[in-house]
Amino acid sequence: MRLNHDKNSMAHILVIGAGRSADALIDYLAKAVQTYHWEMTVADVSIDLLNSKLARHPQVKSLVFDIFNQQQANEVIAQSDLVISLLPASLHGEVAKYCLANKKHLLTASYLSDEIKDIAHEVAQSNLIFLNEMGLDPGIDHMSAMQIIDNIKKQGGEITSFRSYTGGLVAPEYDTNPWKYKFTWNPRNVVLAGAGGTAQYIEKGQYKYIPYHQLFQRNDLIDIEGYGKFEAYANRDSLTYREVYGLENIPTMIRGTLRREGFCKAWAILVNLGLTLDDFEVDTSQMTYRQFFESFLSEDQPGTTLEKLACFTGKSVEDPLLQKIVWTGLLEDELIPVKGSPAKILQHLLEQKWKLEEEDKDMIVMQHQFEYVQQGETHTIHSDLVVTGDDAHTAMAKTVGLPLAIAAKLILLKKINVVGVCIPTHQNIYEPVMEELLHLGVDFREKTFSV
Amino acid sequence: MRLNHDKNSMAHILVIGAGRSADALIDYLAKAVQTYHWEMTVADVSIDLLNSKLARHPQVKSLVFDIFNQQQANEVIAQSDLVISLLPASLHGEVAKYCLANKKHLLTASYLSDEIKDIAHEVAQSNLIFLNEMGLDPGIDHMSAMQIIDNIKKQGGEITSFRSYTGGLVAPEYDTNPWKYKFTWNPRNVVLAGAGGTAQYIEKGQYKYIPYHQLFQRNDLIDIEGYGKFEAYANRDSLTYREVYGLENIPTMIRGTLRREGFCKAWAILVNLGLTLDDFEVDTSQMTYRQFFESFLSEDQPGTTLEKLACFTGKSVEDPLLQKIVWTGLLEDELIPVKGSPAKILQHLLEQKWKLEEEDKDMIVMQHQFEYVQQGETHTIHSDLVVTGDDAHTAMAKTVGLPLAIAAKLILLKKINVVGVCIPTHQNIYEPVMEELLHLGVDFREKTFSV
Repeated sequence: MRLNHDKNSMAHILVIGAGRSADALIDYLAKAVQTYHWEMTVADVSIDLLNSKLARHPQVKSLVFDIFNQQQANEVIAQSDLVISLLPASLHGEVAKYCLANKKHLLTASYLSDEIKDIAHEVAQSNLIFLNEMGLDPGIDHMSAMQIIDNIKKQGGEITSFRSYTGGLVAPEYDTNPWKYKFTWNPRNVVLAGAGGTAQYIEKGQYKYIPYHQLFQRNDLIDIEGYGKFEAYANRDSLTYREVYGLENIPTMIRGTLRREGFCKAWAILVNLGLTLDDFEVDTSQMTYRQFFESFLSEDQPGTTLEKLACFTGKSVEDPLLQKIVWTGLLEDELIPVKGSPAKILQHLLEQKWKLEEEDKDMIVMQHQFEYVQQGETHTIHSDLVVTGDDAHTAMAKTVGLPLAIAAKLILLKKINVVGVCIPTHQNIYEPVMEELLHLGVDFREKTFSV
Repeated sequence: MRLNHDKNSMAHILVIGAGRSADALIDYLAKAVQTYHWEMTVADVSIDLLNSKLARHPQVKSLVFDIFNQQQANEVIAQSDLVISLLPASLHGEVAKYCLANKKHLLTASYLSDEIKDIAHEVAQSNLIFLNEMGLDPGIDHMSAMQIIDNIKKQGGEITSFRSYTGGLVAPEYDTNPWKYKFTWNPRNVVLAGAGGTAQYIEKGQYKYIPYHQLFQRNDLIDIEGYGKFEAYANRDSLTYREVYGLENIPTMIRGTLRREGFCKAWAILVNLGLTLDDFEVDTSQMTYRQFFESFLSEDQPGTTLEKLACFTGKSVEDPLLQKIVWTGLLEDELIPVKGSPAKILQHLLEQKWKLEEEDKDMIVMQHQFEYVQQGETHTIHSDLVVTGDDAHTAMAKTVGLPLAIAAKLILLKKINVVGVCIPTHQNIYEPVMEELLHLGVDFREKTFSV
């Protein structure tokens, strides 16, 4: 398909990727496009996905698109003014290359990669903005934290502790299984959460390193008013965010991910057994889930598979943690229908068990905990966010997509004037975006205590 | 230096690498070169190493050599007839390239790599032998196992279980620390042992997978007559050796590495804490070993560092396993003088503590355990090898270097006529090599039991 775009008349937004997180973003920008008489194209490899996502937006063009088709990628990006990449994080570098060559702005919701950092100078020289980490986590977490940090600093406070937790979960009414979890996001990333590297943070001036196999055993317990208790496991890297947030000498800084109480301790058992390993292929021909599970238990442990598990964990067979594992079906005499690594086999099973049904709603929870000293007094701020999915959009699609969409609009309206490779820690970015998010229901509740 | 080599008069052996495992090999081949009027060159990047290793062998040429100097590498290999690569395993592919181009035989003591497997057809076409896994483990383990396997098969027996264990340790008289271990081989490989991937084996028809963090907790206990007890941890891959040994349907097959009793359980604590992690850099400026150690302990554990460790492990502070860790110095208030990953910091400390002193002697132990059924009866064979270092050579240098040296000689004498890329599981190779090794003190003791 050929894009018709008169460069002199109107701005043209290109959204690459029409997957899970695109819905709220497309709806928001489709409206903006009408208001401001812009153009918008949504590009994806799947024509079916495009048709289903764009049916109600005749003003938005759809384009079957492959980022690896160099000629097409270059041509399409050349005809846009601003590109939003919703592709998997590893492909943003490719998009960035064409954006820089054709001098187009770029927005992503992914962690700023070294690949994009490396071209920061050229991006700034070209008066472009390459805005990364502009989703939920990373994204809203940065913006909402920076609002509080800048405010405390302005009042002369010194921040001594910052803990920030985010989770994508199922809404309480739809929370119908013993894990209190359903997949609201990429299942593979959930199964391999934490496996990418050692978690690092700082607590009371002491560096802390948690190897992956210990990660889900060592949780902070969080309370969110009206929503109860959550377990948090540490994110891979909390240390570099000291500099990002301008908190270089802070004694305590931890970023973590939230699950419902009981999830982490049960998941820790699967990690400890080795069921999330991803470095070898299991020969699953004629293998049942129970045999697969037994492959990770020692021969020395006696009894039934459940008794062996009880022996391995030092818990009773009735323990709710063990019962969560029984519930997954891992102990059943059912043939495994897939091939691959342990992580892939586990994912296949959980995709059936943790499926978010059509009528289910998801939920995003976030909590920032600050401690700061002002005029000799210690203060605590808890800032909580809960966003629930509705009939139009999941909470995940809203909180990932809307920051991108708002920022794209504000850049084209020249209300965001930052230049270069960046993340939304600048007041110039977070202030107008958070202001508009508030009106869209992204509403933090703040509580302050003084000691 | 220019090599003078008249191709028609005499065979020319090129040894690349004059490091730790070269001594016994050079001494053996220096004698063979005199006996058969061959030529021999030892090539290394270090002139000092060459001078020290070749002082007593005026008939052997030395050559300062860099495998990455393409012109030199090609020229030097072109002038030899047979190349023995003692370089790090990752560099054998480079050597193989020049050997194939110039049609020269190649021998290594390293695991057969995919890189070399990929050129197997060309090697065979050129009537060359590229003999890999021709050291101790892999090497002597294969050859001694195949002697027994072929013998059992010849007598109509069916092998139902094969367990094979090898360890490089310090000889009992020099075994002077609580770990009963000293570095007799590359310290980095010892610190990172097992970290490369999940251990896989088969036991009573059930596949078994042990994640790295569990590896040192799950040991077989081995007894070697006259030498006492050893703990074994599973090697990464025991499964592919079923095919290599012609034991495709064997119900039990395990290859493992031996340490003295108590070592594995104590090492398991360090692995479990995360002290062998190698995926991030620790900021060690002004950090003591104790602070480093505390970085891996939870804030929730109370008391002194040792009490926290006791709490983490569920053991008493007097427990010999914990006392082994105290002995390393990891709990001392001493500044860390190096930078790098946890594994690198731990290695630095252990290189001082586990140093093999000048007068110390090392020891190689190996045990094969076979079970087989013959005419309805079950039999067991235990085959043990113990080799101790002497004033001339370490046990490691002898057991790694002599198989290579003997094979090189036999190939040049055309007593080994195998062609292609191979490992020493062919009778044509293992029989004459093991025969000669026996005369050099590599003497397996076999015990047979019937049930």
